[in-house]
Amino acid sequence: MQIYADNAATTKMSKAVIDTMAECMKNIYGNPSSIHSLGQQAAEQLAKDRESIARILGAEPSEIIFTSGGSEADNQAIRSAALWGKKNGKMHLISTAFEHHAVLHTLKKLEAEGFLVTLLPVHEDGIVQMEDLRAAVREDTALVSVMFANNEIGTIQPISEIGAFCREAGIIFHSDAVQAAGHVRIDVKEMNIDMLALSAHKFCGPKGVGALYVRKGMPVYPLIEGGAQERGRRGGTENIPGIAGMAKAFALAAKKMEENGVRERKMRDALIAGLSEIPHARLNGDAARRLPGNVNFCFEGIEGESLLLLLDAKGIGASSGSACTSGSLDPSHVLLAIGLPHEVAHGSLRLTLSAENTMEEVAYMITEIAAVVEYLRSISPVWEELEKGEREHVIQ
Amino acid sequence: MQIYADNAATTKMSKAVIDTMAECMKNIYGNPSSIHSLGQQAAEQLAKDRESIARILGAEPSEIIFTSGGSEADNQAIRSAALWGKKNGKMHLISTAFEHHAVLHTLKKLEAEGFLVTLLPVHEDGIVQMEDLRAAVREDTALVSVMFANNEIGTIQPISEIGAFCREAGIIFHSDAVQAAGHVRIDVKEMNIDMLALSAHKFCGPKGVGALYVRKGMPVYPLIEGGAQERGRRGGTENIPGIAGMAKAFALAAKKMEENGVRERKMRDALIAGLSEIPHARLNGDAARRLPGNVNFCFEGIEGESLLLLLDAKGIGASSGSACTSGSLDPSHVLLAIGLPHEVAHGSLRLTLSAENTMEEVAYMITEIAAVVEYLRSISPVWEELEKGEREHVIQ
Repeated sequence: MQIYADNAATTKMSKAVIDTMAECMKNIYGNPSSIHSLGQQAAEQLAKDRESIARILGAEPSEIIFTSGGSEADNQAIRSAALWGKKNGKMHLISTAFEHHAVLHTLKKLEAEGFLVTLLPVHEDGIVQMEDLRAAVREDTALVSVMFANNEIGTIQPISEIGAFCREAGIIFHSDAVQAAGHVRIDVKEMNIDMLALSAHKFCGPKGVGALYVRKGMPVYPLIEGGAQERGRRGGTENIPGIAGMAKAFALAAKKMEENGVRERKMRDALIAGLSEIPHARLNGDAARRLPGNVNFCFEGIEGESLLLLLDAKGIGASSGSACTSGSLDPSHVLLAIGLPHEVAHGSLRLTLSAENTMEEVAYMITEIAAVVEYLRSISPVWEELEKGEREHVIQ
Repeated sequence: MQIYADNAATTKMSKAVIDTMAECMKNIYGNPSSIHSLGQQAAEQLAKDRESIARILGAEPSEIIFTSGGSEADNQAIRSAALWGKKNGKMHLISTAFEHHAVLHTLKKLEAEGFLVTLLPVHEDGIVQMEDLRAAVREDTALVSVMFANNEIGTIQPISEIGAFCREAGIIFHSDAVQAAGHVRIDVKEMNIDMLALSAHKFCGPKGVGALYVRKGMPVYPLIEGGAQERGRRGGTENIPGIAGMAKAFALAAKKMEENGVRERKMRDALIAGLSEIPHARLNGDAARRLPGNVNFCFEGIEGESLLLLLDAKGIGASSGSACTSGSLDPSHVLLAIGLPHEVAHGSLRLTLSAENTMEEVAYMITEIAAVVEYLRSISPVWEELEKGEREHVIQ
């Protein structure tokens, strides 16, 4: 059995999206900035796709800036808010301890440039609490950046509450919705979101394409300087086929969101129930307020990497932490943020499902993961110490 | 007849490239940062494509950073050199007056941040002169950024001389090779280039993909913060299908470079000869030291936009200035830089050919352009004044 359970890292593109892109690459090859018919045909395609994506988010087409992906969108949003803050004597930025590195590393750079950054704690359930946000806000707070759903543990944040609070307080609210978009409902107007980052390849669209929603009137500055594309907000020839693929994928995801969500939740909950049977295992993050396809477990005494390699040999493609940090030997900053000790934060397993997975795959994964965990524990010196009582169990 | 003569704006993708990408989108959908087999398959594809592109440029694979295009690559190169300069007390940056806006606007921002920028003049032939560079260099010069070939008039700069000079002087040399790559030979080692920007869609590859070559040991900082991709030099999931398309297109362009060059030069020179027959017309930029497919003319008394619209109606897709600035009503900064007066710099026609154009198309273009120019002059009040001798001809 070959199972792909790493959809938070990237998704398989749907055939309809590949066909849309191939068709576009073949026929709509003009540069949308060109005056001639071929250019105008590309400009029309771009306008149509922009409108389609905007409509799904509850935004205006002029509020959508196409980028090369979620990271670029996050960088631009945060840098824009910071620059606006600097011009207005507001040098304080708020975010959370478990954001994606596109957010955290940008904030770290801004800190070096003189900004003051507060990272809100994340509680054991993987959810940011409003009272922490309220306590952190200062007179000079320019930005609150809270991810819509976490990329490792999938927990969904109280975006509407944060949005309402920030709007009332006159603070720019950005949300990294890379993991959420296409999977849960997002309405930027209703949720009072000022900026929002999307990435196409997380909802069966192409890699290398994303978008930044910026509410009309909010400050936005180019991260990439160049021509007058995107109303001067992002230089570089627009990726027409990529954007067409993103629009197609986003429309399909929106149309199937409820149906896919029901399917994924059912598989997710079965997987959680099955893996919970393994001794000294724990689900990370709230069981209900999480993305429909996200399962994230820690198994005491297990190294994440060995687990992944053995699962891969059984045909299961999964991850430990996020793909973006998989080259790193550090424990997951997300798991540390929700209070896990170092030795456990190192050994997590993330299974992220799509609607293409099946209950048969879920059953297979439960059996195989249980067997691999048992095997790894049988050869683990740490587990031996735990068994002998020379070390305390962290997970009961 | 339908003629595409705007290949400097963007090129038609070759079928082989579209097929490569569609195949890759279908089958190699893993995230190269993932540990499992699907991820490793993507990582291998990425390594293969990186090596292929590096080899063509005479670079090492580790010296190639994939970006979302030429603009991003230019931004990153210049910002990296500037940041290095700042750390080393070298706040002077040299470039030229006729660079692409990805370079000029980045420099403008750096000027506002305290850097001193010298823009070298460009002479009537559209070529930067070594003595101007030598005269501009100071003790605190961190960077020289000179485009390989200009995007409007196609003139090729003395890159090897500039490279040798900068290497000797210990100054970082960046070249925006967006228009040149895939069309003329580039060897970064032989030419002593430290940084070089490429864009795939200018050589029949996909939009939204580019690369930055950075010589080993040169300073480079991420423009997009995020995960550890591209050895920490560029955050964001790698665009595997886009990069595969770029590698395929670049390999095809390299293989066919000489053959295509001969074909294009023949058409270019015929077009130049034919258009030179039109009274009060002039070729912009040196006739020989220019890209094989570039033709750029000014016709006195003619508005660029009207010319393009009428040519489009005749099936000819061309441009005035570059596509990136076509939304602007300002005269071309490139033509002003080579000394053209405002009224003429406003009325240029750029025809940029590919090997897919034909001599029949060239003959058709000459006839139709001559007719359209004659017609537009017949209704032009400026031309009337010129004819009556109430105004001096600028072009003889």
